[in-house]
Amino acid sequence: MSRYRQRMSFRHPERDAIRVDAVLSALGNPVRLAAVRSLDKDGDRNCGNLLAEIGVSAKSTMTHHWRVLRDAGVIWQHQHGREYQLSVRREDLDARYPGLLDAILAGAARDEAA
Amino acid sequence: MSRYRQRMSFRHPERDAIRVDAVLSALGNPVRLAAVRSLDKDGDRNCGNLLAEIGVSAKSTMTHHWRVLRDAGVIWQHQHGREYQLSVRREDLDARYPGLLDAILAGAARDEAA
Repeated sequence: MSRYRQRMSFRHPERDAIRVDAVLSALGNPVRLAAVRSLDKDGDRNCGNLLAEIGVSAKSTMTHHWRVLRDAGVIWQHQHGREYQLSVRREDLDARYPGLLDAILAGAARDEAA
Repeated sequence: MSRYRQRMSFRHPERDAIRVDAVLSALGNPVRLAAVRSLDKDGDRNCGNLLAEIGVSAKSTMTHHWRVLRDAGVIWQHQHGREYQLSVRREDLDARYPGLLDAILAGAARDEAA
């Protein structure tokens, strides 16, 4: 029996297939918005660490959230060893929708400070 | 019996109570995004005209969409005579989240052109 797990790879939309309504819908949720803010601010993280950081304990809920963000083209989710690494698709989002992600993240920071 | 209908007035959040995740969620829907683009481009409109323009026929569906946009602080909806007039809360949104609405609408225009 192999000691290597099967590599699980997720489908991600190409840059050109990203749609702004899907991006807005994905980020229009407090938990997903907090996750993307954290990833954007502090860099790539594996799922477990990010989960602990934003204080969500239900793994199944987060599995759903990662899928929504991935399908919308907001994050990459790739396997590294036994962990899933997450990162924001900054380059793709900035190329496709200049200023959008910055305006959203600045808005979230403003709401938090209020 | 009065020949005047009762004036129906809707609650709208104050500028300071607007939250970016609610704005994103409200605009993260193709019909609502199209409605707001149309209002922003061509100015205030009553519900009936806007409905006809964006090609949605189910009035009950649109009643729901207006409520989501109103509750999120994206539009004003006020009665003028026997009609409800809609307008984008540009000033409030631009003051609270500089560049956000412009980036979103530019993104929608870009998606449409693709």
